[in-house]
Amino acid sequence: MSASPLRIDTLVIVGVGLIGGSFALALKQARVVGRVIGVGRSPANLDKARVLGIIDEVVTDAGAAAARADMVLVAVPVAQTEGVLRAIAPHLAPGCVVTDGGSTKQEVVALARACLGAKLGQFVPAHPIAGAENSGAAAARAELYKGRKVVLTPLPETAANAVARVRAAWLACGAELRTMQPAEHDAVFAAVSHLPHLLAYALVHDVALHDNAGTLFDYAASGFRDFTRIASSHPEMWRDICVSNKTAILVELQRYQSQLAQLQAMLESGDAAALEAVFERARTARDGWLKKQ
Amino acid sequence: MSASPLRIDTLVIVGVGLIGGSFALALKQARVVGRVIGVGRSPANLDKARVLGIIDEVVTDAGAAAARADMVLVAVPVAQTEGVLRAIAPHLAPGCVVTDGGSTKQEVVALARACLGAKLGQFVPAHPIAGAENSGAAAARAELYKGRKVVLTPLPETAANAVARVRAAWLACGAELRTMQPAEHDAVFAAVSHLPHLLAYALVHDVALHDNAGTLFDYAASGFRDFTRIASSHPEMWRDICVSNKTAILVELQRYQSQLAQLQAMLESGDAAALEAVFERARTARDGWLKKQ
Repeated sequence: MSASPLRIDTLVIVGVGLIGGSFALALKQARVVGRVIGVGRSPANLDKARVLGIIDEVVTDAGAAAARADMVLVAVPVAQTEGVLRAIAPHLAPGCVVTDGGSTKQEVVALARACLGAKLGQFVPAHPIAGAENSGAAAARAELYKGRKVVLTPLPETAANAVARVRAAWLACGAELRTMQPAEHDAVFAAVSHLPHLLAYALVHDVALHDNAGTLFDYAASGFRDFTRIASSHPEMWRDICVSNKTAILVELQRYQSQLAQLQAMLESGDAAALEAVFERARTARDGWLKKQ
Repeated sequence: MSASPLRIDTLVIVGVGLIGGSFALALKQARVVGRVIGVGRSPANLDKARVLGIIDEVVTDAGAAAARADMVLVAVPVAQTEGVLRAIAPHLAPGCVVTDGGSTKQEVVALARACLGAKLGQFVPAHPIAGAENSGAAAARAELYKGRKVVLTPLPETAANAVARVRAAWLACGAELRTMQPAEHDAVFAAVSHLPHLLAYALVHDVALHDNAGTLFDYAASGFRDFTRIASSHPEMWRDICVSNKTAILVELQRYQSQLAQLQAMLESGDAAALEAVFERARTARDGWLKKQ
C-alpha cells in the first residue's frame, strides 16, 4: 500500500507491556525504527523495559513524548485510553500516526472521536490478536506477532496514508492484516475471546470458593490447567474489556447460559444420546478448526 | 506394601485405548509383565495395538481371556463396565486381581458389588488422572503415568493383597498413589474435571451454532484453543462420565451457573471493581496452584 519503505524515526509506546513492548522489539528487529520512547504508569516497569532494550528513553509526560513522535502506539488497558488520547492530541505533529492495541474497538473509536478533534484522521484503531496470560515489559518478545492476525478498524475519516503506515508497521512485525467494522469486531471477540476469559475466571473463582478448595486444586490436572490458562490474565485489562464491551459480552453470555441450561436438562433426564450428540458436534467443529490452523 | 516384587504373568487389558494401552506399555517397560492379552470392541484398534507392541495377543471373549489372567484392567467407557464385569466374573482365578481406569467411582463400585459376587474382594477400583484429548491404542505411551496421580477407592471388602498388587502395578508405571472414598472422589472430579469438560464442549458447540461460525473460528486464537482443548475429548467416554456422575456434576453445574449469574449482574451494572475482584482472586488462586505443580 505504501510506496516508500517504512521508516519510523521516533516511536512512542504508551504502556510498555506485552503488547507495546513486543511491538517495539519487533520493529527494532526489523530495523525500521530509530528511537523508542516509553511512557507509562510504572517507573519500575519502564526501567525494566529500558534495561531489556525495548525502549531507549523514558518520558513521563505523554504529550511531551507524542510531540516528538512520528508514530504512537497506545497499549494501555481500555479505561486509560481516553486520558492518553486527551493528553497527546494537542501535541501530535501532522505527519504522526496514532494506533492502539485495545481488545475492544467501538469504545476506542468513540473516544478517538471525542478526544482527537481535527487529528482524528491520524488515528488507526487496531487489535493485535496476540494476547497471553503474561503481562508487563518482561513478557515482551520480538516474535509475538509473527503469523498472528492484527485487525484494523479504520474510521471513514482515517487518512489512507495513516492506514498504510500502520499496516506497514504491523507487517514489519510479521503479522497478518485484517480489516473489520468496529461493531463486528466487538461481537466476534466477545464470542471467541471475551466470553472464554470470563468463563475461565468464573471456574477458578468457583473452585477457590469451595470449602475443600485445597483438595480440589490438589487433584486438578492438565485439562484444568489448559482450560483455565486465560484465568491468569491481567485482571485490570480484562475488567476494562468487560466494561468496554459489555453489551456484546452479555449477548454471548446469555447464549452460553442457555446452552448450559440445555446440558443441565440433558443431565437431569439422563439423556445420554443428546449429551453425546453435543459432545460429538463440538469435537468435530473443534477438530475441523484445528486442521485449518 | 507388597513384600515380594511385582510379577504379572498374564495381564488382560479390556479396552486397549489411551488408558489401557499406556498401562500395558508402562508395565512392559518396567519388565514386570509376561504376556499381555487385549480384548475390545474394535478389531482394527486391537490389530493396531498388536502391531505397536502394546499387546501380544488378541482374544475376542473377555471371559476366556480373564480365565488366563493374574491381573485384569478394565479400561472401557463407564457404561460398558457392567457387561465386562459380568463377562469376566465367573472366570477369575482366586489369585487374579481386577482393577479399572474409570473416571467415576461410585457407579463402578456399585456395579462391582452387583456383578462380582464372591470375587468382590479381588477388585480394586482405580482412576488414573491422566486423560488426554487423544484416544485409541495409537495414543498410548509408556510415559503417560509418570508423576501422575492414581486414585484408588478400595471397598471395605477389598483384599489387602489385591490393593497391594494394584498399587505396585501403578507404582511400576511411575504413578503417585492416593486413596479416597468413592463419593469424595466423584465430587472432587465433578468440580475439577467433569464440569470443565462440559463447559468446554458447551462453548465450542455454542460457537459452532452461530450464523457467523466461520468468521468466529477464523478469529479464535490461542486462548480459545487451550480453553477448548478438552472439547476434543472422546464423546462416548464423556457421555458415560456425565451420566454416571450426574448428581455430583449437576451440583457443580448449578454452583457455576450461580457464579455466571453474579458475573452477569456485575456486567449489567458495569460494576468494574467487582469484576476486577473476581478476576484478581481467580488469578491469585490459579497462580498459587501452578506454583505447587
